[in-house]
Amino acid sequence: MVEAAVSRGFEIAGAVDIDPQIAGKSLAQICPGAPTDVVVAADLAEACARSEPDAAVLTTVSSLVAARGQIEVLASKGVPVVSTCEELSFPWEADPGTAKEIDESCRAGGVACLGTGVNPGYLMDFLPTVLSAPCLRVDAVQVWRVQDASARRVPFQQKIGAGLDSEQFEQKREEGVLRHVGLRESAGYIASSLGWSLDGYEETLEPVVADTPISAGYAPIEPGQARGVLQIGRGYCAGSEIITLTFRAAVGEPESYERVRIEGIPELEWRCEGGINGDVATCAVTLNAVRSVLSAQPGLRTMADIRPVTFGPAGEEL
Amino acid sequence: MVEAAVSRGFEIAGAVDIDPQIAGKSLAQICPGAPTDVVVAADLAEACARSEPDAAVLTTVSSLVAARGQIEVLASKGVPVVSTCEELSFPWEADPGTAKEIDESCRAGGVACLGTGVNPGYLMDFLPTVLSAPCLRVDAVQVWRVQDASARRVPFQQKIGAGLDSEQFEQKREEGVLRHVGLRESAGYIASSLGWSLDGYEETLEPVVADTPISAGYAPIEPGQARGVLQIGRGYCAGSEIITLTFRAAVGEPESYERVRIEGIPELEWRCEGGINGDVATCAVTLNAVRSVLSAQPGLRTMADIRPVTFGPAGEEL
Repeated sequence: MVEAAVSRGFEIAGAVDIDPQIAGKSLAQICPGAPTDVVVAADLAEACARSEPDAAVLTTVSSLVAARGQIEVLASKGVPVVSTCEELSFPWEADPGTAKEIDESCRAGGVACLGTGVNPGYLMDFLPTVLSAPCLRVDAVQVWRVQDASARRVPFQQKIGAGLDSEQFEQKREEGVLRHVGLRESAGYIASSLGWSLDGYEETLEPVVADTPISAGYAPIEPGQARGVLQIGRGYCAGSEIITLTFRAAVGEPESYERVRIEGIPELEWRCEGGINGDVATCAVTLNAVRSVLSAQPGLRTMADIRPVTFGPAGEEL
Repeated sequence: MVEAAVSRGFEIAGAVDIDPQIAGKSLAQICPGAPTDVVVAADLAEACARSEPDAAVLTTVSSLVAARGQIEVLASKGVPVVSTCEELSFPWEADPGTAKEIDESCRAGGVACLGTGVNPGYLMDFLPTVLSAPCLRVDAVQVWRVQDASARRVPFQQKIGAGLDSEQFEQKREEGVLRHVGLRESAGYIASSLGWSLDGYEETLEPVVADTPISAGYAPIEPGQARGVLQIGRGYCAGSEIITLTFRAAVGEPESYERVRIEGIPELEWRCEGGINGDVATCAVTLNAVRSVLSAQPGLRTMADIRPVTFGPAGEEL
């Protein structure tokens, strides 16, 4: 993220890492290309005391509850926040109490706060709602994010369970570590934007199992082992499945693509062959959101109530 | 538009038509499905006096100068405006003086005003910029809108010159009636959103000529006659073509599609097979924009500085 921010023309005012092996070092030692005069602080208060940042990019946790304290510190210092915290992207369904607390802290500090990223934040929520703009009626929204994980980072391949046998996969599924966090938030975001009230939501997660040996990933995968995950989130209203979000990421997947289908008037489908690399795109969406957040009303915002996020001049207020 | 608005759940407060054959009649006589108690007014002031609309949908003219007086009347009555006036979608390059006058009238009236529609307004400007959000760098934006006009309304087929011989086509081109209005506005919108400064813009318009007899349209087309138009807008910066907008609409076109390509990091391309019907989509984008306009700051707005336009509950303020 630091490298991406520098390449996008952002000035790095400070950095924080709680790891005692990292705090105290020059940021340039950790992230090539970073300015040499920025020393990594051990906590947010220390970093804010040293500089007066226009905005903070918070990429620490997936959990809303875990992010709350960090956002409160930043809000109390008057620093707007863009965070990749998945549960922050649309917390109003899953945990409205914590969302309200964060909202109030941000209003008190006079700053806006946004959870975003490529997914959740963009591909399976913001973008499908924007693609519904030419529709006079929308009956259902279906989104597919299908990825060949062969070329992705090793931690990503591990995160999707590549190489696990069925017992190991089951164990890790129960631990919750295989789960992509964000489908529920994306479904809530779509429903809220389109004016729908979901009366049910369910999510399934199963392995994509190799039927031939696969050598495309970071380690060989034998037949019968998982080569990735298939996770589907389904939102219901009055017995109908009106939102279907399919996330499939596997080593050796024959094709990668993004696909959004809207049933309604008119019916339409958009497709991006090759898909969008999540590592680059998460950095991009997050950094590109900064200028929309700088011009937003104070409070906990979503991608739906700030100016449309696009590529644009770094950090310049819209 | 009236039928679409009723189907979307909008309450029709009033209607205006300057045609003396229409003014004074019940709206239901003109537009099936409209309420019977709305009488078409002869001018805007009369319509505003009779009702207190939350917003006006203005679908009268393509020219900014022609729209100005109508917007000023509505703004002076405190009525927010969403208009399909093509030149209003991004008037800041072509006619900043008139744009500023409209902006000031709207601020004085405390209302927001937006020019939008499917094109300009959405497919060749707003959407491509939103599709750039996952990019860390954007070098060029290319948009194609390719349509088989065989099933479109007769006036649309006439507007694109279907059935004209080369002399007739040339004459109508010179009269300016074949031209799709909005490519320049779309290019200006993209450049502004992405932070680019165009140092050149040019537009070409040529016939798509039939090489075989075509019977798919409203009237037969002979070989050598035009079956439609190919219009290309090109925006330049420092000698490079950084924006290319290709509008091709012709009777008997083998396929219809929308396509957006972004050169940069990452490079990406989205495609909508079958394309999006312009008649339905213009109504939808315009009506769906109402709620974003209701929550916007007063002044002349663009799709870039209001909340993202999506399908949603009719007229409910975001």
